[in-house]
Amino acid sequence: MSVSPGAGTRLDPWFGSYAARTHGMKASETRALFAVANRPEVVSLAGGMPNIAGLPLEIIAKITADLIATEGTVALQYGNGQGSPILRERTTEVMALEGIAVHPDDVVVTTGSQQALDLVTRIFVDPGDVIVAEAPSYVGALSVFRAYQADVIHVAMDANGLIPEALAETLASCRAAARKVKFLYTVPTYHNPAGVSLTQPRREQVLEICRRAGVLVVEDNPYGLLGFDGRVFPALRSLDSDGVVYLGTFSKTFAPGYRVGWAAAPHAIREKLVLASESAILCPSHASQLSVCAYMDACDWQGQIGQYRALYRERRDAMVGSLAEMMPECSWNVPAGGFYTWVRLPEGIDARTMLPRATTALVAYVSGSAFYADGQGADHMRLSFCYPTPERIHEGIRRLAGVVSKELELVQMFGPEGSTTADDVQVPSPDVL
Amino acid sequence: MSVSPGAGTRLDPWFGSYAARTHGMKASETRALFAVANRPEVVSLAGGMPNIAGLPLEIIAKITADLIATEGTVALQYGNGQGSPILRERTTEVMALEGIAVHPDDVVVTTGSQQALDLVTRIFVDPGDVIVAEAPSYVGALSVFRAYQADVIHVAMDANGLIPEALAETLASCRAAARKVKFLYTVPTYHNPAGVSLTQPRREQVLEICRRAGVLVVEDNPYGLLGFDGRVFPALRSLDSDGVVYLGTFSKTFAPGYRVGWAAAPHAIREKLVLASESAILCPSHASQLSVCAYMDACDWQGQIGQYRALYRERRDAMVGSLAEMMPECSWNVPAGGFYTWVRLPEGIDARTMLPRATTALVAYVSGSAFYADGQGADHMRLSFCYPTPERIHEGIRRLAGVVSKELELVQMFGPEGSTTADDVQVPSPDVL
Repeated sequence: MSVSPGAGTRLDPWFGSYAARTHGMKASETRALFAVANRPEVVSLAGGMPNIAGLPLEIIAKITADLIATEGTVALQYGNGQGSPILRERTTEVMALEGIAVHPDDVVVTTGSQQALDLVTRIFVDPGDVIVAEAPSYVGALSVFRAYQADVIHVAMDANGLIPEALAETLASCRAAARKVKFLYTVPTYHNPAGVSLTQPRREQVLEICRRAGVLVVEDNPYGLLGFDGRVFPALRSLDSDGVVYLGTFSKTFAPGYRVGWAAAPHAIREKLVLASESAILCPSHASQLSVCAYMDACDWQGQIGQYRALYRERRDAMVGSLAEMMPECSWNVPAGGFYTWVRLPEGIDARTMLPRATTALVAYVSGSAFYADGQGADHMRLSFCYPTPERIHEGIRRLAGVVSKELELVQMFGPEGSTTADDVQVPSPDVL
Repeated sequence: MSVSPGAGTRLDPWFGSYAARTHGMKASETRALFAVANRPEVVSLAGGMPNIAGLPLEIIAKITADLIATEGTVALQYGNGQGSPILRERTTEVMALEGIAVHPDDVVVTTGSQQALDLVTRIFVDPGDVIVAEAPSYVGALSVFRAYQADVIHVAMDANGLIPEALAETLASCRAAARKVKFLYTVPTYHNPAGVSLTQPRREQVLEICRRAGVLVVEDNPYGLLGFDGRVFPALRSLDSDGVVYLGTFSKTFAPGYRVGWAAAPHAIREKLVLASESAILCPSHASQLSVCAYMDACDWQGQIGQYRALYRERRDAMVGSLAEMMPECSWNVPAGGFYTWVRLPEGIDARTMLPRATTALVAYVSGSAFYADGQGADHMRLSFCYPTPERIHEGIRRLAGVVSKELELVQMFGPEGSTTADDVQVPSPDVL
């Protein structure tokens, strides 16, 4: 006896009560696979977890204890809805490293920058509104956009990031179709998943195009300080203070477990973000915020970022070295920063259909299709090098190379597989950041 | 030269871009007053901040340091989107105190129970849907409901809580008008702001009425364990596991600064809540969750709740004693638990228009109108006794009595003031929990 696809949902007595936005919300097909991917025998090249083993935990333990012992009645109390003024001040020091001059009053602290993304979308997007985003785009952003029933239009990138002409064309065709573009969502630096960065001249061009079209820019920048040769691009926000909402986070430069991110926004937008955040969570964790402040006070936080760069650089090298050695039939870029390599599969191989076979071979990745709102992208896979050691990366690529070469044999024997062009945007889990 | 009311917003170049939901979002008129209310010379009877001075901070400091030193790479890492399994297990111990038997798998950890409220509303409510709620209702819930463009219909309460007959009538008239009621939102125990609790027979009746009408119950229960005589009501969730989403929090029984709350929900709803939460914040703070676990392991958390009860009982006594002594022209209930007294003002006095005069007299409260979606309620004020000492409460009521008696003179001289029936739901800030 077979169970029809809808049977699970018909067992839910509240099925008829959900909001329209909820129907678009579903667990990714790969979720079960990722549960497998978390088993220790699997080399996961799927996750986006930073490697925090190098943090000075003894010092952090001590300063956190001091914080609670001496300021516990403040740290464990409700805080300000906008975020602690002290922490907001500290975020401006971080942003200054990328050329941003912003007043702490224009910063809103959020529960990770994911919440900032949610709030920006919440205040701007009505169902059916257009958001323009790179092709591919961060899976967690696509999930937020879908939750607010936005229509995502992807714009092509190349090795120099978002292509300005393609952006201009897309905005023009939206205007011609009388479709309101609420914002451009972009990860201009060390892109997730594509690994590329927008060149400096293109930064000016992209901003100018958006300015002329009256389109807001949402700049998501988790990796900007993680350039392997120490290169720091000027943030878009540093070039335009009126038309950019900047999203930052301590998750990759310090640690994700506190869930401290922020948005820096033009003043009027900042006011709306605070109201939206108070409605969503009342206030961000005061304990978390003050812990981050204590860390920045007591530790060499910029030195720590330098250590992270060196760590990830070594792993990036292990990744691209292993790819060159063992997967010559694929192509990829060599990312200059961030966590990810974006790998094009040989013609005819579908990253989605290959995934179960890869996990059987004890290696995991994320199919490129997760990074498109429209089901494209299964000709790519995202390989992350942030968490496993260089040795594990090498072993993972060895396993993956075996899987790919078996797929190629099948393709050569039977022709390309029918791609499952399922229209599912995966809801992100920390596994697929 | 006068500035027209809309001038501020016209200065915002993005004014035309906001979502429909954003237009309903505005800072409460009283926000500026609350900034004043936070000055130390003001006695604030407005806030809902718990008094955490009695926490064993030295012990909490030590266990937090141990946590970071020994498990830092876990505690400071991303966690599970649904929340840490260990913490979910611990929440079931808390819920068991109110008669709830629930599997940890049906618990979702959130950034305070405010986020749980946001997520429940997000997954169920389309614009124009009806939410039924007590009259009055928690201001932070009303703010969430407005953010999702719900239509809130209030149902009357009396000294025994929500009136079942009134609820049945409201549901019947919604059905007659073919209006979909998405859920009943209720704070059945030690209500905020009304201070009353739903009696045991009424609990059964309310559940039966909702069950028959196919209406989900959202039970918000921050104060259930804070009964001054130690009385614990059976949670609605303990009487009905299929039709109730239960919201809990550590903010009032431990400390709010970690922002750890939770929802316990029927399985299908729980799945949607997890997806919605992952989209909103990826995952709740692992550091916060494990800190709460460490506290529950190392400290007598139930004993601490007993201390809180004694503390708030003393302050409740100070509040009602002072009211009886100095404000005989008002009437109020004597709450048996929680943080708040709900005070009816003499005929003709408007709590909103009186508020600026109260803050000038260095005492603050929240106007009853904050707790209605429709501008009613200015004939009441909410006085909280959780944070100030008994002496300060007495002094606050002394000041407030002076303000009320001056208002009364004015009313007797000139008749009642024109009530400003502004249709604003205040966005909550931690000041007006």
